[in-house]
Amino acid sequence: MRKETGELLERLRSERPLVHNITNTVVTNFTANGLLALGASPVMAYAREEVADMAKVAGALVLNIGTLTAELVEACIIAGKAANEAGVPVLLDPVGAGATPYRTESSLRILREVKVAIVRGNAAEIAHLTGEIREIKGVDAGDGGGEAPVELAVRAAAKLGTVVAVTGREDVITDGTKGFVVAGGDELLARVTGAGCLLTSVMGAFAAVERDPLRAGAAALTLYGAAAEAAAVQAGGRGPGSFQIAFLDALAGLSANSAGADAVRPLELAAGGGAR
Amino acid sequence: MRKETGELLERLRSERPLVHNITNTVVTNFTANGLLALGASPVMAYAREEVADMAKVAGALVLNIGTLTAELVEACIIAGKAANEAGVPVLLDPVGAGATPYRTESSLRILREVKVAIVRGNAAEIAHLTGEIREIKGVDAGDGGGEAPVELAVRAAAKLGTVVAVTGREDVITDGTKGFVVAGGDELLARVTGAGCLLTSVMGAFAAVERDPLRAGAAALTLYGAAAEAAAVQAGGRGPGSFQIAFLDALAGLSANSAGADAVRPLELAAGGGAR
Amino acid sequence: MRKETGELLERLRSERPLVHNITNTVVTNFTANGLLALGASPVMAYAREEVADMAKVAGALVLNIGTLTAELVEACIIAGKAANEAGVPVLLDPVGAGATPYRTESSLRILREVKVAIVRGNAAEIAHLTGEIREIKGVDAGDGGGEAPVELAVRAAAKLGTVVAVTGREDVITDGTKGFVVAGGDELLARVTGAGCLLTSVMGAFAAVERDPLRAGAAALTLYGAAAEAAAVQAGGRGPGSFQIAFLDALAGLSANSAGADAVRPLELAAGGGAR
Repeated sequence: MRKETGELLERLRSERPLVHNITNTVVTNFTANGLLALGASPVMAYAREEVADMAKVAGALVLNIGTLTAELVEACIIAGKAANEAGVPVLLDPVGAGATPYRTESSLRILREVKVAIVRGNAAEIAHLTGEIREIKGVDAGDGGGEAPVELAVRAAAKLGTVVAVTGREDVITDGTKGFVVAGGDELLARVTGAGCLLTSVMGAFAAVERDPLRAGAAALTLYGAAAEAAAVQAGGRGPGSFQIAFLDALAGLSANSAGADAVRPLELAAGGGAR
Repeated sequence: MRKETGELLERLRSERPLVHNITNTVVTNFTANGLLALGASPVMAYAREEVADMAKVAGALVLNIGTLTAELVEACIIAGKAANEAGVPVLLDPVGAGATPYRTESSLRILREVKVAIVRGNAAEIAHLTGEIREIKGVDAGDGGGEAPVELAVRAAAKLGTVVAVTGREDVITDGTKGFVVAGGDELLARVTGAGCLLTSVMGAFAAVERDPLRAGAAALTLYGAAAEAAAVQAGGRGPGSFQIAFLDALAGLSANSAGADAVRPLELAAGGGAR
Repeated sequence: MRKETGELLERLRSERPLVHNITNTVVTNFTANGLLALGASPVMAYAREEVADMAKVAGALVLNIGTLTAELVEACIIAGKAANEAGVPVLLDPVGAGATPYRTESSLRILREVKVAIVRGNAAEIAHLTGEIREIKGVDAGDGGGEAPVELAVRAAAKLGTVVAVTGREDVITDGTKGFVVAGGDELLARVTGAGCLLTSVMGAFAAVERDPLRAGAAALTLYGAAAEAAAVQAGGRGPGSFQIAFLDALAGLSANSAGADAVRPLELAAGGGAR
């Protein structure tokens, strides 16, 4: 897996895939800079008049409901359908699902009307999409309860019919029957707004160069964690401002050897779908 | 006051209040990162379909008209009324009031329809809200004339029926009969876009943990100034880019002892309402 | 020219012109901070209710279609017409023209309805405005083909009836019969989102203090390149995050002597309009 992750990074930098983001106003700049630093080619386009044209020539489409409006949800669905027709993978970041009914319902509507390749969220957001009640505070939930996220991710993947990534202290990505658990990262990521949103877009960049969403997602999670660890070293405890800048530098500085040998392990699922 | 400020900071970091911002597109990222650095939990939500749901579970609601539209003003009023019903304090940042009639009128409309706990602006913005004519250039006014801002703040508080903070070289916060004057800060703050907007949101974070708006506001002003001073030292004259990052670091690095002993002094008002 | 560039910088810092930007959600913060660092006074205002009021008191109006919507295009035209009436120079950044038909058509519509002083784009964007077909990927085009951009800029200026700046490895600015070629800059600019957008706004700041668009534009291009070179030295290879911050510092640190003596050379055009 480590060798494969390095190869995917090289492919991404060689192909510079166009990642079309329909995202929230808080994170647009950080998302674009993060994708540029990584080596992808970001574009933001939101108008119903153009989202289909943009989505169908993109390598991936990333939908993010962080500051959703009726117009934006409409644009997500138009773009998503165009991407589906063109065979462009679609990713969904259900920011703050559960924080208001409107966010939960809009996320579920997108999932009904668009074939989504990967949904990425924290445990509370994913739990709300499956109808499980978790405590959530705004868009900034914790780990959604004491349960390890593997079971949650497996249940959500089965229920939503898509690959699901639940990220937090440890990340899980699964299609409900197989997948990966990824360690790494740094807790300062939680002090940078849009760290989760950018991660979804980075997963989109890898999905543009590797059609297996589990392998694409695992590579993205692994390298994102490695970049966070490098940034924490570079920022040297100065704080979240310095960490944010060092993280952009670290995304640009990633190499085929950046991923630790033991960052990823295959997810082993028991026959009945339970994790063990 | 210094001890109280330290205690409020500790309370804020322990409770991590949810601060709901309806703010402008220029400063969303900086506002969210500043609140995260401080220890609060920011959320941005703008759609009329969800602003009431979000506002009523927040610790504070911060309304900012920096890039207002008809939809955004509507959202501010819906959210503001929901916050009022739920007892959630509402803060208003009338960015650029006076620069165009639309900004002045929209600010006054919000003030009529929503009970606002604290209005924070520079001298020109506050003067325009009271109908006094001051020179203003865009959203980036100076100190609004030669007058010390105490009288202006006192008049505005009486006229608007709310606590008013006028910030600039020295800050004043008053309910029209009592209040505080706060020294400190660094002139590089004026070279970072959104420094005033973030300050209003930081006041919101303190208002979420301390119901007296004067004490909440004074604590926010004091610590904000202390962070700016620390950032100026850290950035070491490199410029406004480095200062901005150092300022985020400094917000995270604030401690109970950060506020200087003499940063805050009570505002002494003469019997007739004039300051002396 | 070098002496004149220094004098324009001093005039800009003395007058602090108000630059009204109607720009995209990705770059608003960076644009505002860049203009503040340089010494100008940025304002963003988008609502049809206020754009005319703001534009007519501004020193320059910068229109940028990076995340256009129907409302934003409308606002651009209302603001542009008000600026035309008031004699305020208007600049256009046709971000991603050619990437979708909507972007090309909206750019051309603005050019038909508003008298634009300067259009600035990369080679692919400018080529699409003139109806020439170039390869483009999202909003992040390369140099638009092997041709040196001088001929393209000259043709575009003649066809669009405005000063055109084509920026890339080397920059050209021309009214179709005369102009300048500007060297300098650093390739890390291409790794910072909004570097082109901010450049257009910086050209706007210079257009506010110098009515000849060729001289204003050349000064902006020269100093922008010099700031990029200084930032690359300061960032010391750490990466695009550090470069971005160092670039803001460098804009603030520009002096009358920052421009290299040989950065600008007059554009020599043969009689028939061809460059030689």
